[in-house]
Amino acid sequence: MARTSLSGFPEWLPEGRIIEMHVLDELRRVFELHGFAGIETRAVESLEQLEAKGETSKEIYILERLQAIKAGACGGRAPKERGMGLHFDLTVPFARYVVDNANELDFPFKRYQIQKVWRGERPQDGRFREFTQADIDVVGNGELPFHFEVDLPLVMAQALNNLPIPPVRVLVNNRKVVQGVCESLGVTNIEAALRGLDKLDKVGPEGVASELAACGISGEQTSVLLRMAQIRTADSSEVRSRLDAIGVGGQLLEQGLDELTLLLDTARRRMPGTVVADLKIARGLDYYTGSVYESEIEGHEDLGSICSGGRYDSLAKDGKRIYPGVGLSIGVSRLVSRMISAPMVRASRKVPTAVVVAVNNEEARERSEGIAATLRARGISTDVSPSAAKFGKQIKFADRRGIPFVWFPGEDGQPDTVKDIRSGDQLEADPSTWTVPESDAFPVIEKVMD
Amino acid sequence: MARTSLSGFPEWLPEGRIIEMHVLDELRRVFELHGFAGIETRAVESLEQLEAKGETSKEIYILERLQAIKAGACGGRAPKERGMGLHFDLTVPFARYVVDNANELDFPFKRYQIQKVWRGERPQDGRFREFTQADIDVVGNGELPFHFEVDLPLVMAQALNNLPIPPVRVLVNNRKVVQGVCESLGVTNIEAALRGLDKLDKVGPEGVASELAACGISGEQTSVLLRMAQIRTADSSEVRSRLDAIGVGGQLLEQGLDELTLLLDTARRRMPGTVVADLKIARGLDYYTGSVYESEIEGHEDLGSICSGGRYDSLAKDGKRIYPGVGLSIGVSRLVSRMISAPMVRASRKVPTAVVVAVNNEEARERSEGIAATLRARGISTDVSPSAAKFGKQIKFADRRGIPFVWFPGEDGQPDTVKDIRSGDQLEADPSTWTVPESDAFPVIEKVMD
Repeated sequence: MARTSLSGFPEWLPEGRIIEMHVLDELRRVFELHGFAGIETRAVESLEQLEAKGETSKEIYILERLQAIKAGACGGRAPKERGMGLHFDLTVPFARYVVDNANELDFPFKRYQIQKVWRGERPQDGRFREFTQADIDVVGNGELPFHFEVDLPLVMAQALNNLPIPPVRVLVNNRKVVQGVCESLGVTNIEAALRGLDKLDKVGPEGVASELAACGISGEQTSVLLRMAQIRTADSSEVRSRLDAIGVGGQLLEQGLDELTLLLDTARRRMPGTVVADLKIARGLDYYTGSVYESEIEGHEDLGSICSGGRYDSLAKDGKRIYPGVGLSIGVSRLVSRMISAPMVRASRKVPTAVVVAVNNEEARERSEGIAATLRARGISTDVSPSAAKFGKQIKFADRRGIPFVWFPGEDGQPDTVKDIRSGDQLEADPSTWTVPESDAFPVIEKVMD
Repeated sequence: MARTSLSGFPEWLPEGRIIEMHVLDELRRVFELHGFAGIETRAVESLEQLEAKGETSKEIYILERLQAIKAGACGGRAPKERGMGLHFDLTVPFARYVVDNANELDFPFKRYQIQKVWRGERPQDGRFREFTQADIDVVGNGELPFHFEVDLPLVMAQALNNLPIPPVRVLVNNRKVVQGVCESLGVTNIEAALRGLDKLDKVGPEGVASELAACGISGEQTSVLLRMAQIRTADSSEVRSRLDAIGVGGQLLEQGLDELTLLLDTARRRMPGTVVADLKIARGLDYYTGSVYESEIEGHEDLGSICSGGRYDSLAKDGKRIYPGVGLSIGVSRLVSRMISAPMVRASRKVPTAVVVAVNNEEARERSEGIAATLRARGISTDVSPSAAKFGKQIKFADRRGIPFVWFPGEDGQPDTVKDIRSGDQLEADPSTWTVPESDAFPVIEKVMD
């Protein structure tokens, strides 16, 4: 990470940014391969839109024009001037965009969106206050078939498994399963049950039990909920048999189990070993209505979920229509931060440049520029030495940046030569025909072995 | 442009975003071909950094945490909470980044940066309050050779001329020329002279004259300044002879003329017809110290300069070092907005998808998914029909989005077929060998003819 004077606002050095760009390029490539259209929304939403999503209001950065503040003191600020804040995710803006443009969009509408988001965390909490998210969602007009709840997590799994990181597991649960179990048990305060279960990893079974007891959930009910929360398997029949063994049932649970079974079985056929049911997942179940997803990187479980999402029966609505949606969001900055700090990967160089053309003397700069222009026209990233210093110094310019080749314009009618400064090999070359080895054409992201 | 409820915050429909992405991809490609490294900086700077750039303070959006405002009323807001604002350009953050990371960077450091910026304009002014800029800069440690003042505007010219827009002219001037003329005339209030000349296009020569008179610049002096401001030519010797004819001279002017001559003559050799001296350019001359650049699109001069910049002898400084820089910035959103509204271009379709695989019935969905997976593994952007509706409806799904091909899985042992829905041609095809014509692989940006 680059040095910076504001905590929570990560910046990368050029070599880190190469890794981030590789990640973003790969995500975009996979999203587009699956037919998702790219959009961007403005960074700013009305405070009304942002606050509609309940308890997140504490995380909002609001905007004010400096001039307006300077003009009036405190009392002079009209409420209108306070009406805008930075988005804290890409779902709220996407829902607003869908409603704004419903007549222009074709449903079901599949979009990806890769943008910065901001959260007004307290600096001392050590969290990112600015970070990049990469989201995919599909949104329907009125209805949205279940198969998208199978398709979307698999697109994300494929995108993540294409990155130079350890294997990613997608963990899934289903709101209907958990709610069905609660109903079967006679637990009416479902939100409290979800809130308690969500803390299982942090406070342990006893902690959850005392929390649920305080909400009027009995010890017997809690014991069943905790047995449910222990179910973690890729095998749909195991999910079913273990829930049967607990002695829960009912129509909603059956429907949820059918959905979960279809998701697990299809995922197992398309991408074996990728999707696992984990019935303790409770985060987000208060607003998701069907499938819910989290994910973890093998060996980096401490990082938490780097890709989460689910199904909303009502992602957005306007006067006449309801727009159901299903989608997932990758926390790109957190992922890239770990890739760099672990380190999982390394960029083969700090610049895009494959070759530097040396300058024999300042009078001959235009000749070097001509060679560079010929190479660039052929798609080879080329720089020209900034000074006509001694060749040793010009080679050092390339070496410090990791640029593999230096081009020497021939003097006195001699042919040009190009030197691989790693091996020292120097060969005659013509800028209109010389080719750079494919592995040297652009910076390569190399996996770092343990 | 997409519909939106906040003026000044542009958003594009998917088909517009395809055009914007094409522009951004092309700019990045050209910048990287020239050896510029990509970086991003955080959206937020300290107010101190932002306000250091003088009169721009009126355009700053400052950030406050909503929670902090709700907690204390007006009096309770600590000044610290008010210390951050959104960047209004990419130069101020880049200068700060260079100082923060001076020990990690290799100088001269060439970087490109493509990001959103924000300006707290009054909504009624009809200006963009959020927009994307694409900047290139090179920054030196202590020194920076003049040749970069030739190189950088030509990189931008090449980047812009690769776009599907009319030819772009780069207009150049030089602070030393204008200051030299002023000194030669005995005009001491150079800032006033620059401010007045900058309004020439808006208020005409009489307007400028009365403005300059009010600042104590004589009629004779003004008349010479106006003759200087009329000089617009790609021919360096014409610049020189017309200044000679006006009767101005001196050492500083000579130095500026030498620089301007080198810029014009080199540009004419490398990219004939691209760079033109325009001595009325005064904007930015108060902070630029050498070459200064603007640019215009042929036939769209009313749009103003879509790419501007110049040389700073002190882009940044810290305790021990000064970092001179030269760079230019493209106003991408304004450019894309014109490309779409003119219209100059059109996207051949609204989605990346080249082919939609039809679904014969819901039971056969997995077979269609298998075909799609094979096509995607071969780099073909593929979607699967969201429903097993009648084929007519599935074809309409493709047609509405501009997707050229529909794939029909063969039934009862028949081979698969693929239909070009534009021509109606339908042929047998195998997903492991079928290739999509190159021009159909991804959306194409087509020039719109007048």
